[in-house]
Formats: sequence, C-alpha cells, structure tokens
Amino acid sequence: MKNVIQLAHGSGGKLSHELVSAVIQPILGNPVLDQMHDAAAVCIQNTRLAFTTDSFVVKPLFFTGGDIGKLAVCGTVNDLAMTGAVPLFLTLGLIIEEGFSLDELERILHSMARAAGEAGVQIAAGDTKVVEKGAADGIFINTAGIGAIMEGVHISPLNARPGQDIIINGFLGEHALAVMQDRHGLTFPASLNSDCAPLAGLVKEILTKVPEVAVLRDPTRGGLATALNEIALAAKVGMLIEEEALPVSTEVRAVCDILGFDPLYLANEGKMIVLSEHKNTENILTVLHNHPYGREARVIGKVTSQPAGQVGLRTAIGGIRLLDMLTGDQLPRIC
Amino acid sequence: MKNVIQLAHGSGGKLSHELVSAVIQPILGNPVLDQMHDAAAVCIQNTRLAFTTDSFVVKPLFFTGGDIGKLAVCGTVNDLAMTGAVPLFLTLGLIIEEGFSLDELERILHSMARAAGEAGVQIAAGDTKVVEKGAADGIFINTAGIGAIMEGVHISPLNARPGQDIIINGFLGEHALAVMQDRHGLTFPASLNSDCAPLAGLVKEILTKVPEVAVLRDPTRGGLATALNEIALAAKVGMLIEEEALPVSTEVRAVCDILGFDPLYLANEGKMIVLSEHKNTENILTVLHNHPYGREARVIGKVTSQPAGQVGLRTAIGGIRLLDMLTGDQLPRIC
Repeated sequence: MKNVIQLAHGSGGKLSHELVSAVIQPILGNPVLDQMHDAAAVCIQNTRLAFTTDSFVVKPLFFTGGDIGKLAVCGTVNDLAMTGAVPLFLTLGLIIEEGFSLDELERILHSMARAAGEAGVQIAAGDTKVVEKGAADGIFINTAGIGAIMEGVHISPLNARPGQDIIINGFLGEHALAVMQDRHGLTFPASLNSDCAPLAGLVKEILTKVPEVAVLRDPTRGGLATALNEIALAAKVGMLIEEEALPVSTEVRAVCDILGFDPLYLANEGKMIVLSEHKNTENILTVLHNHPYGREARVIGKVTSQPAGQVGLRTAIGGIRLLDMLTGDQLPRIC
Repeated sequence: MKNVIQLAHGSGGKLSHELVSAVIQPILGNPVLDQMHDAAAVCIQNTRLAFTTDSFVVKPLFFTGGDIGKLAVCGTVNDLAMTGAVPLFLTLGLIIEEGFSLDELERILHSMARAAGEAGVQIAAGDTKVVEKGAADGIFINTAGIGAIMEGVHISPLNARPGQDIIINGFLGEHALAVMQDRHGLTFPASLNSDCAPLAGLVKEILTKVPEVAVLRDPTRGGLATALNEIALAAKVGMLIEEEALPVSTEVRAVCDILGFDPLYLANEGKMIVLSEHKNTENILTVLHNHPYGREARVIGKVTSQPAGQVGLRTAIGGIRLLDMLTGDQLPRIC
C-alpha cells in the first residue's frame, strides 16, 4: 500500500478492505466494530439495535432513477435492514460547498423526505457545515441510522453454512451504469435507470415469514462479487455461483459488452443477497416475487464447504473460475 | 436569503438557524427533529435513547490542544451528554481526498481512539469514501452517536424557567482562537489551547447528584451568546447575563481586544451551559469545581420572564444590551 490514500481505497473492493483491516481496525477495533456487518448490532438496556453510517459523494448529484438524497436514505435504510432491523431514525450530516444552489438543496431534501416516507423512517437530527468554494464538490451527505432488530431474527455473515441457497432479488449493475451514463452524458439505446430503492419493507416481509434467514447483504460498491467474497471470508465457507442464473438485463449486458464492465462488480442500490437453508427458498421467493423490488428474484448458487473463503463462478460453458473482490476502482463516486 | 449557500449558513449562528427553519424543517420536519435539541431523544421499545450527528471540516486538521479526530469524538459525545445521556456508540464516516497522507490518517484515528477511550464510547460502524484530488479539502469526518438517557433525567431547552441560575463550566473562546492561531500561523504572547474535551463523565456526575437539572447545552459554533439565544427562543423566556461574571482568560481577552473578536461569539468545544433551580446551584458547582473540566465554573446569570426569547447582557458599567445570535461568520471551518 502506498503511503497516500488512493481512489480505490473508497471503491468498496480489495483496497477498501485492506484500509479497514490494516489501518482502521488495529486502531479503532472493538468487538462491535469487528462484526464487520452492514450495520453494527448493539444491545442497549436489553433492546437489540442496529446502528450504521454511510457518506454519499455521488457524481452527478441527480441521475436517472434517483439522486444523492434518495441514495442517502436508501443506503442507510438498506444497511439497517441487512441486519434484520426495522429502520426507525436517521441523522443527516450535510457538508455543502459555498455557492451551492438552494433550489438543488431543496430538491435533494424533498427526495430524502419521499424516500424516508416510503422506508418508514424519520430524520431525527441533523448538522450542516459549509466549506469555501473549491473545498468540496457541491454537496456531500452523511446519514447514520438506527433500527430495532426483529425478534427471533439473528442475521450475520458468520451464519453462512454449506448447503444454503444464495438468492438475489433482481437485475445487477443498474445503479452503476445509470450514474456513469449521466456523468459522461452517454446515450445508450435504452436509458438505464438506477435501481436505488429502500428494501426495508421487503426484508420485513421476508423475515416475518422466514425469521431463520441466515445472511442478508446488499451488494453496493464492489458489486455482487465483492459482497459474496466478504461473506465467504467471514464465515470461512466457499460459494459456487451459476453464471447462467445471474439476472442481468439486456440493456446492462449490452453496455457491459461495449465498455468492458462486468456486472458482477457493478454497484447496486436496491439489491440484496439472501442466504438461507434450501427448505426456505420457496417461501422466500414467493415473498420476493410478489413485491415490486423482488420480481426478478432467483437462486444464483449455493454455499459450499470448499474452497473456504473463496467464491467460484461456473461459467456458461461449464468451467469454474474464481471471483475475486473488486480490485482498483473503475467507477469512483458511484454512491 | 440569497438563492445560494453562503459560508455563514454553516456558522451555527443566525443564517444557520434560518436555513434550518426555512428550508430543512419544512421539508424534513417531524416531532423528533422539531425538538431542536443537541441530540434527538427517541424511544425504542421503552428504552430512551439520544441520537445525534456532526460533521467536522476544521482547518487546520491539527491544532494546539486537539485535532479533527479528537474533535469528532468530543463533539458528538458532548451533544449526547447535553440530553442527559450516557454516550455508548459512535459511527465514523470518512470522506477523504485522493492523495491524503496515510500517516496523518493514522494520527487522526489514534486521536479518536484516545478520546473515545476517555469518553467511554466504542466506534460501532464506519464508512470510507474517497473523492478525486481537488474535490475535498484533505479529510472530512462525520460521527453519529447513540447514548442511553439516564433514568429520572429530563433535559430539554423547553425546561428553562424564570429564576433558574445559568452556570458555565469554564473559560470561553479557547477553541476558536486556538484554531485561528494555527490556521494563520499567528504568534500570540501565550500559546492558546483548544478546550476540546469530552464532557460525558462530568455530566454523568452532575446528573447523578442533581437529576433535576433543567437544561444543558454546549456553546460550540456561534458561541455562548448564540446558545443562550437558542434556549431563550425555544422556551420563550428571557435571560440576563452579567458581563463581569463571564469567565474569559487573560490570553483570550488580550487576543480579542487586538483582533476585535467577542468571546461571547467564539466557539468552544469543552464547555457547557447548565440551567437549574437556584437551590441546586451549590451542589452543581461542587461537582464542577472538583472535576478537571469544571474548575473555573461559575454562575453567569439568571433566566428571566422578560424580554421573552431574548438575552440581555448587564455590562461592567451597569447598562443592559441585547445579545443577538451570531450574524455572519467571522471564523469559518472552526469545527
């Protein structure tokens, strides 16, 4: 690792993990932080809470299917949901560049209000800092969130066990390509929409029916491949993903083919991975298929015992190749 | 209000309040946010929690008496303490400029770890974003925090009542002038130290002895005058402050005289205002005087019934002038 921060340190991929494990954890580590879950599970006076934070630096601020405000609500709501929590309250930290348009700020706040309404969360507290022109790029938003972990639910990446099915709730890569298209003013045959959405309602429905779900994770920065690797590493299990089962829309496939991106490494903002015993799969898919954010849900692979800590992809022609975490950062500032 | 964000929107003074009341609250407001407390008090499954957030953009990152890391822990810990909560967990959101020194990042994290240790809080979750060179100024840090509100304690700015004593725990203006001195490379006769400190331990001692304390507030951005105005406005009471009682060190007084600053409007990071019935004052001062962060504590005035929503200062020569909130922003990026 060079002795300065690189863009890839914020990619959510391999270098991000190195930064956390080699720099941040040795200094700030404790049993709660070391869970390395999407949100921390903490217990206060016998109440099980999820607590998490995310900062948003997406560029451009407004993109097809969302904006930084919607993203800031959905990102944190989804992190809470991934621990089996019902999201309740968010805080809002604004860092704004001097000269930023008040109209745009209002558009962003309205978008946050709509997303918070859909997700059933309230903004409980906030803070605004302003820096001089040139000291930030427009607006950066941090949201932190707390939620109540559902009774009887114990979600953790450590619960991954050989034999479990791996389910995804829909098409991959839409958020990353929508942001890229709008950042660079690209014109694709069909306009790409970010999948940005709050998943808390859907998660609550699933866990009400199947509280014994083992693992939930949203494949944001670093994409599906990185998220699966994180789970495999944490639980010391293997995984085998079927390339032919991966849900990729015709539009995303076409853009990836032209530009050389792999949908497995593209960020999603309305997707989640569900790991559960095979006997629950039908119930989970039923809930998913009846929900607007789960219509394209499907089983994409299985947890295996070997190779521990690694993820294999069985390709369309039958070979198996290892899927690593994202290396480098092809699309900085995607969220 | 012009239609763009100005530096003074982040001052913590008058324009900040206008931004919140005219733009943010109408869009995101709800009964929890509308408390307008240092931290929100929320109730989850019968557990009373405080929840808050703060972003830190201080310049320079390292200053006499502290750095952005210590500030990021103390600021949020103190906001939690001001609602009568014992701070428990923080989240950490880093926004880092590409090319930032890893050594400096480690120094900042070590400083956070020390401050968190003193305050008795754990970092529960974190997030790191990296933006391109030039898109941010070094590093911005957000911390959000949760704490458990102490039993039998009900702190709120709405509790201010005529007749209550107004207590401050020590010297004013040290943080702002220390940062300014280091930002501009000024050499003062005596070096100024930031008062940055976690007040949670001190608050817990006070509330254990006097749980009926009415109001706590830390006079950070905008200084003592702005914080008192906020309380007076919220509770629709008046206040009369005695200029001769205000604790201002010789060093701060000298610098203010030369540069034309008023210590009443300078940011503090280790100070708090305590409002309580007069009968409790001796007990509170005893706790304060026995604590390293309260040795210079004193009564500086009283809550009055008139003029409702305003703060008066009785000057050394006996006249009374109204103290407004901070207008403009003489020292941007002070925290």
